[in-house]
Amino acid sequence: MKALVYQGPGKKALEERPMPAISAPTDAIVRITKTTICGTDLHILKGDVPTCAPGRILGHEGVGTIEKVGAGVTAFRPGDHVLVSCISACGKCDYCRRAMYSHCTTGGWILGNTVDGTQAEYVRIPHADTSLYRIPADADEEALTMLSDILPTAFECGVLNGKVQPGSTVAIVGAGPIGLAALLTAQFYSPAELIAIDLDDNRLDVAKLFGATMAVNATGGNAAEQVMKLTDGRGVDTAIEAVGAPATFVLCEDIVAPGGTIANVGVHGVKADLHLERLWSQNITITTRLVDTVTTPMLLKTVQSRKLDPKRLITHRFKLDRILDAYDTFARAASTRALKVIIEA
Amino acid sequence: MKALVYQGPGKKALEERPMPAISAPTDAIVRITKTTICGTDLHILKGDVPTCAPGRILGHEGVGTIEKVGAGVTAFRPGDHVLVSCISACGKCDYCRRAMYSHCTTGGWILGNTVDGTQAEYVRIPHADTSLYRIPADADEEALTMLSDILPTAFECGVLNGKVQPGSTVAIVGAGPIGLAALLTAQFYSPAELIAIDLDDNRLDVAKLFGATMAVNATGGNAAEQVMKLTDGRGVDTAIEAVGAPATFVLCEDIVAPGGTIANVGVHGVKADLHLERLWSQNITITTRLVDTVTTPMLLKTVQSRKLDPKRLITHRFKLDRILDAYDTFARAASTRALKVIIEA
Amino acid sequence: MKALVYQGPGKKALEERPMPAISAPTDAIVRITKTTICGTDLHILKGDVPTCAPGRILGHEGVGTIEKVGAGVTAFRPGDHVLVSCISACGKCDYCRRAMYSHCTTGGWILGNTVDGTQAEYVRIPHADTSLYRIPADADEEALTMLSDILPTAFECGVLNGKVQPGSTVAIVGAGPIGLAALLTAQFYSPAELIAIDLDDNRLDVAKLFGATMAVNATGGNAAEQVMKLTDGRGVDTAIEAVGAPATFVLCEDIVAPGGTIANVGVHGVKADLHLERLWSQNITITTRLVDTVTTPMLLKTVQSRKLDPKRLITHRFKLDRILDAYDTFARAASTRALKVIIEA
Amino acid sequence: MKALVYQGPGKKALEERPMPAISAPTDAIVRITKTTICGTDLHILKGDVPTCAPGRILGHEGVGTIEKVGAGVTAFRPGDHVLVSCISACGKCDYCRRAMYSHCTTGGWILGNTVDGTQAEYVRIPHADTSLYRIPADADEEALTMLSDILPTAFECGVLNGKVQPGSTVAIVGAGPIGLAALLTAQFYSPAELIAIDLDDNRLDVAKLFGATMAVNATGGNAAEQVMKLTDGRGVDTAIEAVGAPATFVLCEDIVAPGGTIANVGVHGVKADLHLERLWSQNITITTRLVDTVTTPMLLKTVQSRKLDPKRLITHRFKLDRILDAYDTFARAASTRALKVIIEA
Repeated sequence: MKALVYQGPGKKALEERPMPAISAPTDAIVRITKTTICGTDLHILKGDVPTCAPGRILGHEGVGTIEKVGAGVTAFRPGDHVLVSCISACGKCDYCRRAMYSHCTTGGWILGNTVDGTQAEYVRIPHADTSLYRIPADADEEALTMLSDILPTAFECGVLNGKVQPGSTVAIVGAGPIGLAALLTAQFYSPAELIAIDLDDNRLDVAKLFGATMAVNATGGNAAEQVMKLTDGRGVDTAIEAVGAPATFVLCEDIVAPGGTIANVGVHGVKADLHLERLWSQNITITTRLVDTVTTPMLLKTVQSRKLDPKRLITHRFKLDRILDAYDTFARAASTRALKVIIEA
Repeated sequence: MKALVYQGPGKKALEERPMPAISAPTDAIVRITKTTICGTDLHILKGDVPTCAPGRILGHEGVGTIEKVGAGVTAFRPGDHVLVSCISACGKCDYCRRAMYSHCTTGGWILGNTVDGTQAEYVRIPHADTSLYRIPADADEEALTMLSDILPTAFECGVLNGKVQPGSTVAIVGAGPIGLAALLTAQFYSPAELIAIDLDDNRLDVAKLFGATMAVNATGGNAAEQVMKLTDGRGVDTAIEAVGAPATFVLCEDIVAPGGTIANVGVHGVKADLHLERLWSQNITITTRLVDTVTTPMLLKTVQSRKLDPKRLITHRFKLDRILDAYDTFARAASTRALKVIIEA
Repeated sequence: MKALVYQGPGKKALEERPMPAISAPTDAIVRITKTTICGTDLHILKGDVPTCAPGRILGHEGVGTIEKVGAGVTAFRPGDHVLVSCISACGKCDYCRRAMYSHCTTGGWILGNTVDGTQAEYVRIPHADTSLYRIPADADEEALTMLSDILPTAFECGVLNGKVQPGSTVAIVGAGPIGLAALLTAQFYSPAELIAIDLDDNRLDVAKLFGATMAVNATGGNAAEQVMKLTDGRGVDTAIEAVGAPATFVLCEDIVAPGGTIANVGVHGVKADLHLERLWSQNITITTRLVDTVTTPMLLKTVQSRKLDPKRLITHRFKLDRILDAYDTFARAASTRALKVIIEA
Repeated sequence: MKALVYQGPGKKALEERPMPAISAPTDAIVRITKTTICGTDLHILKGDVPTCAPGRILGHEGVGTIEKVGAGVTAFRPGDHVLVSCISACGKCDYCRRAMYSHCTTGGWILGNTVDGTQAEYVRIPHADTSLYRIPADADEEALTMLSDILPTAFECGVLNGKVQPGSTVAIVGAGPIGLAALLTAQFYSPAELIAIDLDDNRLDVAKLFGATMAVNATGGNAAEQVMKLTDGRGVDTAIEAVGAPATFVLCEDIVAPGGTIANVGVHGVKADLHLERLWSQNITITTRLVDTVTTPMLLKTVQSRKLDPKRLITHRFKLDRILDAYDTFARAASTRALKVIIEA
């Protein structure tokens, strides 16, 4: 089968690989019909993710059809139409029982990281019963591909952890795909104000189309002043960090109101300054989280009931044969204006 | 009347001052019978609290009897026996309505800071109806003096924010008075393990007497390793920072388990490192808070029903005449082994 | 001044009454500009509310302008544009401190019940600082009149207590004004399905216009069967009782899913059957509540930010002179299709 | 092997039965070392539980050692020392993912009900990985037998659902084994008052030994008046119904304070009156629940750390040979003063 393989820092190729096989009774083999590329895949390609060794098939998102199941799989059978979760969960360990699937002792983020992933014609899914989600036969596969990772990540790490509430004021720092996914799902809770912050006016324009009530261009370094002005000096109830850099995290510290929450979504490579000399008395909460995908069933219902339209995040489409072009388009998002790209296997 | 007055950095004196008078209809004048000294008073004396100007009567804790009330006070009358809260709350502003009395727009921590305080024979209490608490006539005044600040601070900022639960593992970093108060009130929730961490073996011995199940002396810099070992490599569900220094905050980052909470109680003068490169994926929560004293009625009930014995925190007693000795004893806690000192007015 | 006065069961009149006067320092006198009629006013007129004595000016909803304030009022002054809350709150008692204003020991629902109300040119508002809400000068008074009672009641007792969530399934039993207000505010949380249940097809048509995704006419007695069919035999996550009768409450018991919530909004005159022989093992929650109006500030923000349009509830408008016609129109809602009627003073 | 078999209403016998065998890959066979009898077993024997057919081996509680595991079991192997949960959970269905194991679509309460149970030398445990709990080799088996059902039931349905809090006032209606288990676990949260209510002074004496601060004998029908008097007319924050009868449920309605919670633990055979004409405005919450056993790991930690001593519930001990005597002793609790009886297999 064809598969996109990481070949060490800076290198990748579409290779011919053997079909995956069931290796544990709880495995399933899924024939991928749609997959996509995540910012994390680009991090791997830069060599930033040491757990991912050269030779690994990348990808942790996708939709497809069950091809085979191990003897221990009871919830699915061949032919079932399924969504692949970016997080594998055994359903049995202490963390899984606490709904912290991200920290499953034999799962978590392993697909396209420590085991072969979804950017291929077929993928082996460990812990299949608790890591796949059945989808309606007539479901829109492109839309649901957004539920593998980007939407639960934005919703759980940003919106739920950020305690977005009706009438509240929310700032989203970073209007890339993950920030925009937070913007879409924050609206489940009807906040009064949704302030998008970015350096790129194009992205801010998209944010306004997606529901931002105000946009702040952070170029020039006075984003905090702008937000304080827009909020009458009060600051925001929720600040969602969707970039993963020290400066944007500190911006969240600068704009959070007393009693507010900073919900970190970004992947950070270095430490940030925590201004406790100012924040110790401000009754704030800071949260971090690797997505647990516990809200996948809820998100499926919001898509089915048309409360959420995930396809708004999709800007480009490619066949698997042209996945290298897809990577190129996604990596040059500033010029291609790519958000999420669909790859049809 | 006699009053302990801040005279600028490093200077204080017991002065003769005029009796306070009602200046707003919501004021009450309280004759203080017992007061105490807080670590914050020492900070003021070092010149670290710029809002507190020379000439200010210090103190934000105490118990006493109502002497006079303004025309707008409806909940109290002369002769009532009351507890003074360290936080003044108007009960009307947006923050007060959200039970964030610490950020009351015309109150908060003002006593002994921006208005004259309780280390005196009499004190004027603004917003009296919502800043004083009636206590039983036969109440133990010494015990209740601990409810002005130290116990609600430890309980709200450390225990409640830290989400201490039955069966959970809690570390308290810093076994000074505030850490010990957290240790006492954490036991309301029956955690399985309560690990006290300090540099001073005497304090750790007190911690064990007060209910710590394990003690870690952090001298030598391997406290994190010790805690990880004591928790089978898992870390703690709740880490309560009760010191107010960058190193102790980072220790909390080092020992918090995935899914756990760091509850900051300490007053910080400088920023700390937040190791997001490690923590971004650990599903942790960090909280800060200036005490709101919303749990004062609950704490009163726990004292009345003997679930909490605040007098365990009291080590020394002085008359108001000898308050300078009291300050000296409290400031040299390492040698005097002082926790809280009672001053009888 | 003119005022609508209850004259004993079945009797009411528009009378000439003396202007109200400040009787406590915390009082304010408000000149009413808009008021409305509540279903509770009709209950009083039937003689069902023994606390309300003949001679009482009715009404507990309205918007107006501050005319005078007592010496203890600090948050408002003459000329301020204000919303009158149906619940008076002292802000000081144990219940008020727990945000249970409905049970305020010197307040609660007193307006138009135990003290004169808002269906008049002027009204005295006790505990003014914590029972009035400032509104923008250019606010739409008609819209905000819906925030005195009906919207916070539907939102707090139905939607919040009912824990409506994104993706969840909600049934609202009763599509009268209060049920429709629940329907509007339930949408703050983006439930997947909102099932309206009533006996009247006209009301169900309005419900569908207001956002119901399904409508069930309960005539014939098989409403439960219809709901179970619509939910694939699962039942609803939230059942909001917005009628106040034993049969509709039992209907909620019949349709609530395991793990779901029955949120009672209706005013009940008699007991209902609680089928514990079926429900004891179903992990359900039942809630009751008299509105606390703690969400009034949040609701004001949702109106200002156009997440909520309260004017959709208004069907008729009258001058105060014609308030008897307003009552007649409101009382004959089945034929007039009245929801809420505005009375301009 | 020997097993206690239900032979139809009123009939039971200790029979010789074949050893159970693995019938699904997720099964385990457990050799029972200790088991006990539950009030529910007596209900089955009365013929009150139609799902339990004659021929069924009774029992859903116990501790033992793994004898054999199916091919799909990954968390346990032969020789492991385990606690049997009264609730079987697949860990995969919608309810299990929501931690509502009691409603597991292929599990729930099945042991000693729809499949053979634990009052035997061996038992087959379906969904073993998520229905058994590993215990330390040196654990006190008798103590842990109390964690199969009675303690999680009392804790989850009574204490957690009842939101017992530090300083709160709790009434427990019924001081039988389940009420006493609620009494023990309520103390995890340090309530100020714990009022035990029963008709039997002996049981009330035990309740006082177990931590009740007040005891009310309900004989004479004035229990509500007594409770109101003991609470200065306020009522209780939490009323735990631990009987399962209409009258005791109504007693909870009579004593719950505004804002309080009625947590039902009792198994009810008939409906009860819900006095909504009084309660609709009282801001109360009523909860029902079949135990989910999600707190079993937490309870294990509280036992290990000596915050809970389950053996206080054990009054009698028998060998499996004499299980009929054990049933007799347990059934005549009023005269034998039996709480829980241990049966050693």
